[in-house]
Amino acid sequence: MKVRAAVLEEFGAPLEVQELELAEPKAGEVLVLLVACGVCHTDLYTASGADPSGYSPTVLGHEGAGVVERVGDDVQDVERGDHVVTLFSPQCRECEHCRDHRTNLCLAIREQQNQGFLPDGTTRLSRDGEPIRHFMGTSTFAEYTVMPEIALAKIDPEAPLDRACLFACGLSTGLGAAINTAKVTEGSTCVVFGAGMVGLGAVAGCRLQGAARIICVDLSKSRLELARDQGATDTLIGSVDAAEQVVELTGGFGADYTFEATGSVHVMRQAVESARMGWGLATMCGVAGKGETLDIVPRLLITGRRVAGSSFGGVKGRDQVPQFVERYLVGDIDVDAFVSHRLTLDEVNRGFELMEAQDGIRSVIDFG
Amino acid sequence: MKVRAAVLEEFGAPLEVQELELAEPKAGEVLVLLVACGVCHTDLYTASGADPSGYSPTVLGHEGAGVVERVGDDVQDVERGDHVVTLFSPQCRECEHCRDHRTNLCLAIREQQNQGFLPDGTTRLSRDGEPIRHFMGTSTFAEYTVMPEIALAKIDPEAPLDRACLFACGLSTGLGAAINTAKVTEGSTCVVFGAGMVGLGAVAGCRLQGAARIICVDLSKSRLELARDQGATDTLIGSVDAAEQVVELTGGFGADYTFEATGSVHVMRQAVESARMGWGLATMCGVAGKGETLDIVPRLLITGRRVAGSSFGGVKGRDQVPQFVERYLVGDIDVDAFVSHRLTLDEVNRGFELMEAQDGIRSVIDFG
Repeated sequence: MKVRAAVLEEFGAPLEVQELELAEPKAGEVLVLLVACGVCHTDLYTASGADPSGYSPTVLGHEGAGVVERVGDDVQDVERGDHVVTLFSPQCRECEHCRDHRTNLCLAIREQQNQGFLPDGTTRLSRDGEPIRHFMGTSTFAEYTVMPEIALAKIDPEAPLDRACLFACGLSTGLGAAINTAKVTEGSTCVVFGAGMVGLGAVAGCRLQGAARIICVDLSKSRLELARDQGATDTLIGSVDAAEQVVELTGGFGADYTFEATGSVHVMRQAVESARMGWGLATMCGVAGKGETLDIVPRLLITGRRVAGSSFGGVKGRDQVPQFVERYLVGDIDVDAFVSHRLTLDEVNRGFELMEAQDGIRSVIDFG
Repeated sequence: MKVRAAVLEEFGAPLEVQELELAEPKAGEVLVLLVACGVCHTDLYTASGADPSGYSPTVLGHEGAGVVERVGDDVQDVERGDHVVTLFSPQCRECEHCRDHRTNLCLAIREQQNQGFLPDGTTRLSRDGEPIRHFMGTSTFAEYTVMPEIALAKIDPEAPLDRACLFACGLSTGLGAAINTAKVTEGSTCVVFGAGMVGLGAVAGCRLQGAARIICVDLSKSRLELARDQGATDTLIGSVDAAEQVVELTGGFGADYTFEATGSVHVMRQAVESARMGWGLATMCGVAGKGETLDIVPRLLITGRRVAGSSFGGVKGRDQVPQFVERYLVGDIDVDAFVSHRLTLDEVNRGFELMEAQDGIRSVIDFG
């Protein structure tokens, strides 16, 4: 079938919306009609050429939600008409990692996905007979996509898909960092560096876990306002002294749990330095620049701080994304506040511009 | 009373064994007759002038064991004749940290101890009327010392004190890193970088926790032999490729638990890089040089590795050192293999020389 899709032709150049061929789903695969898709930093990171493992041409987009249109052979868990959120981080439920509660890094299709292929090593996308590679196993900047069943989370059809799509990446990453990775405890003190989609999700996650105090740090006052709406009890304008300020705010000790959601290694260091002596855990969520390192004074570790990282918030997507969506539907999680701009597929590059201008939290593409 | 003690007069110069005045124990304090004392890297670190918080003159030594000679007022838990191990890391059992299971960093006397004073802000040591500061709250390179009750672990009198003294620092640090800090699980794969006192203790700790595989990495073949005696199943000569070699040895994934026991930030980095994707925990035990940092590629964290540190192995000394000594007495822990040289107090500088030459694991001073 023919589909309109936003193609990355050349790093650093705007995406081009073109008509491509999309082949039928093979065994274990599903054809999904996209209804909405968030524009995420990772799309821009690859489009810019900064991602060393990036490639082109490819169809970007990974924060998608839609409706199952058709299923291939042997598909068990979804059927035509099901509402789904796309998972760049799949869950096969069978590999060593899926069977272990400590990690969400499914190994089933990792290698093929990283190279831009579906699990059988081929693509369903093509142009004039030439294969076009998939991106993050999702390629959701398109009217339709073909994805493996293990990379789709079936959600409650009551949830509006233009909100549910945020659970495909940024929001789940933040929520999960607090809930799964750090396992924030009731009554604890938390600090979140960065009030973008991931940071705001982390603030919400800390709140859901019952944190007594949530300090949010960002350069933007308006983002810090949003953080207050998500549950932040204190806000702080970011600076080189932010870690000292947090330590001061927390009685000279630092916070029980700190989160970094900026991708800056300097901020990562602040997250470590503002974690509490004795047991403070600093969780890194951001993607750092190529070749950059997080430099830690070992004394901070010896005196009891710990450092962790979180990919997709440690979320096992097929199991936990539907649960997050339920919590959204009952009002525990507020998604509406994050959707700051609505775009058509043809306006996808505007989404990148808004992101670079730090205008709003999320642009969502409506395919409607 | 008059006591002979090894005094650090000048950084970088040999210690001088002199006669000093030792005052009576005040309230909450105990006069201890030293029977044995290990010579530890931290003593040398301070003697060399490398420790930025070091001071002189002071009486070094902290890996001591002896017999209670006299107690001051209000001492509850020890009495004349009790056998004790000295604790540079005290346990008051009352402060916020002592009441929390997550840390052993007692806050009760931290500030005074770091400045070389007993809890009341004065010293018991003096020379010609001039106060001489204590070191690490212990100053056990001396025939007698006065210490706070909260810094003494009362042990089974069956245990020979020239072995028990190793539980005062190095051995407990290694054992505790595996048992308390990392909480090594049964059947897991562990890697220990460094086969000195702390590293060998960590190997033993991993064995006691039921690790299935323990890989020890060191530059010395003879130390690696000792590691095998402690339970190492594999040994590896250290190199710049050590992390890659560990990953290869562990099926391409890395180890569940890694330990650094060298003080080198390069080795710390190897410990992080050889920890398993998904859930590997790297625990730092060594003291790094001034100004040095552990540089971590954030991707290693995002893909599930965690980093921790361990001070005195997370051991709450008054509770756990006696338990370790019991495990030694029943044969679970082998201490004899670590005592490589026996010295008199007058030979204390020889202990430093042996350490710098990496000759043996531990020199023990016999006061007998």
